[in-house]
Amino acid sequence: MKEKVNIVKVGGKIVESADSLHQLLNDFAALDGRKVLVHGGGRTATEIAAQLGVETHMIEGRRVTDAEMLRVVTMVYAGLVNKNVVAQLQARGVNALGLTGADMNLIRSHRRPLVNGVDYGFVGDVDQADGRRLGELLSSGITPVLAPLTHDGCGNMLNTNADTIASETAKALAGAGFDVTLTYCFEHAGVLANPDNEESVIRTITAETFSRLRADGTISGGMIPKIENAIRAVQAGVRRVVITKATQIGGDRGTTIE
Amino acid sequence: MKEKVNIVKVGGKIVESADSLHQLLNDFAALDGRKVLVHGGGRTATEIAAQLGVETHMIEGRRVTDAEMLRVVTMVYAGLVNKNVVAQLQARGVNALGLTGADMNLIRSHRRPLVNGVDYGFVGDVDQADGRRLGELLSSGITPVLAPLTHDGCGNMLNTNADTIASETAKALAGAGFDVTLTYCFEHAGVLANPDNEESVIRTITAETFSRLRADGTISGGMIPKIENAIRAVQAGVRRVVITKATQIGGDRGTTIE
Repeated sequence: MKEKVNIVKVGGKIVESADSLHQLLNDFAALDGRKVLVHGGGRTATEIAAQLGVETHMIEGRRVTDAEMLRVVTMVYAGLVNKNVVAQLQARGVNALGLTGADMNLIRSHRRPLVNGVDYGFVGDVDQADGRRLGELLSSGITPVLAPLTHDGCGNMLNTNADTIASETAKALAGAGFDVTLTYCFEHAGVLANPDNEESVIRTITAETFSRLRADGTISGGMIPKIENAIRAVQAGVRRVVITKATQIGGDRGTTIE
Repeated sequence: MKEKVNIVKVGGKIVESADSLHQLLNDFAALDGRKVLVHGGGRTATEIAAQLGVETHMIEGRRVTDAEMLRVVTMVYAGLVNKNVVAQLQARGVNALGLTGADMNLIRSHRRPLVNGVDYGFVGDVDQADGRRLGELLSSGITPVLAPLTHDGCGNMLNTNADTIASETAKALAGAGFDVTLTYCFEHAGVLANPDNEESVIRTITAETFSRLRADGTISGGMIPKIENAIRAVQAGVRRVVITKATQIGGDRGTTIE
């Protein structure tokens, strides 16, 4: 039987407030079995950058990362946010290990080429994640805590979307023989059929039902790439992707893509 | 036969200048066999702290670490400096893994009590380093890169002297069955019999010869605690401690304490 692993991705909003982080880490620590935490940290990066006189430029929600901003996100994601999470998990009896993609050569990427003439700077698009090495860590009782940074193998760190880190890690662990559940935490209870009603969570989405939900307009906007990304993960061997609130991880609520 | 491991400690001066870091990492990458790098980063911490409006207080060369300064050193040591070193070692074919004492619970410490009425703040005095876990990493081909931070097991990171990180790691690996050489890089070719003559390196110091060298004033000042610390490491099972220039690591130059 395959060994189960839970991968939980939480955004900056959760890890950057002491109260919500405390609650999240309690819930995460209570999850049975092997697990991985992937975190963001964009708000703190923007705040520290401003204090250091480094201006933040976002294009369609993505951070333009020049050399100065790369220094800031490396400090904030791999240092401040990551080690705070690691130390607090250790205090809860979870043997956490903070990692970027450069550590153990876990996630290799290449610098993103121009997109419609836009240079995102030191931003990495993932080439490969090492599921075997991550699996060995998990099997030895370690809980990896992944910061949204990768490297290019030529000495450069690269800023990398945390959702992508999570899905690439999930696919790599599935490829290494694990039974993977990937949970994305966001601000709603799940994918809502009616955006004004938190009770209208769509319980299950498959590639087939997604086509219909998209065609009839039930799923639209920024949710479309999220679900597409989840469906690709499932097609690549991930058992299921769950989209839910951070306060609901490990439960049976939220939307399951399978 | 015991497996050999080289532990190299370099201070901020070396890792914070691109040129000297480049040279050091070339030399370190060229070392045969299992190895560990321990780094500082105090100058960058002081510089970033100033930019963030956090004042630096040093007492007898030691940083007073209040909550704000702890954020800065966590960012700088575990983020900026550590990941830059890791990415550049990866580019040299060394499978580096950046670590603090919180990661994998590698080095546990307690907050330093008042020293002559001085509160150093979030500074850790080491209780225990996990040589077994570090040994497993080494045996699986990983090169640990240690930042000068530990944790208290209660959720707090603690700022910890890099020399101490190096000697505690050396003792723990010796205890786990490794044949350990610990190299401290500093600004001279070795311990000098005549401070004005770089050629006057004392080749070997033992507990016996140290008493004499200290009594006759050949070794004095800040060098005394360094040598005492080295002798304690040797008494605890470390094969030898070498004090030399960063440009001489892996060679047979410098001062050997054994």
